[in-house]
Amino acid sequence: MRLDHVGIAVPDLSAAIAQWRPLIGAPDGAPELVPSNRVRVAFVTVGDTHVELLEPADATSPVARFLESRGPGVHHLAFAVPSVDRALGEVRDRGGRTVDERARPGARGRRVGFAHPSAFGGVLVEFVEGP
Amino acid sequence: MRLDHVGIAVPDLSAAIAQWRPLIGAPDGAPELVPSNRVRVAFVTVGDTHVELLEPADATSPVARFLESRGPGVHHLAFAVPSVDRALGEVRDRGGRTVDERARPGARGRRVGFAHPSAFGGVLVEFVEGP
Repeated sequence: MRLDHVGIAVPDLSAAIAQWRPLIGAPDGAPELVPSNRVRVAFVTVGDTHVELLEPADATSPVARFLESRGPGVHHLAFAVPSVDRALGEVRDRGGRTVDERARPGARGRRVGFAHPSAFGGVLVEFVEGP
Repeated sequence: MRLDHVGIAVPDLSAAIAQWRPLIGAPDGAPELVPSNRVRVAFVTVGDTHVELLEPADATSPVARFLESRGPGVHHLAFAVPSVDRALGEVRDRGGRTVDERARPGARGRRVGFAHPSAFGGVLVEFVEGP
């Protein structure tokens, strides 16, 4: 099992990149728009995992609602799995809820899917397909 | 830079271990009491990082207050640094606040220190001395 990334909700991506850079360094590339979640994201490699900074692309983004209700902070934990569909199915088989019925396109061209926070004690867990 | 662990606040350590085990596996060892923070913790290795599950040892624990105000969820991110004192000093040199003036004893016999959440956009950052 590998932690693929920690997703952090931020109101301003440029400001967040500047604030985190002294500790973890610069993003791996230019920010990317992820249409399915209405977010702009930047990934920073940290060891064998990443920090993902997420800025809402507009007010309809789930991250905009998160910022309104919780304020900036850790938004989700993403784990690398061989199959997102199987990982989501295993959560449901254990009686847990999932946000996504099956995998959908996410950042960096990866297939992703979210469990419901209730499935992991209040933590929003994302599955990311890949190594 | 390495992410040493993700700290997750939980109301019941045994229940949290059982809930996370199907995804990330069993803890590395028996739960440990960390007197300085009044928490009982269990670490689970995930790739080159860890998930730390934190249960308040009593009502005076900062994690008890976190659970009351925010509910269960991600409590902090911990980064491995060569010197906690230096890392805390660098945050202050950039105008950021720190919870700890200098390193103090933490879990697993490590020296640790916390920055203030305002220093990293709402994320509570811990520094852990070690590899």
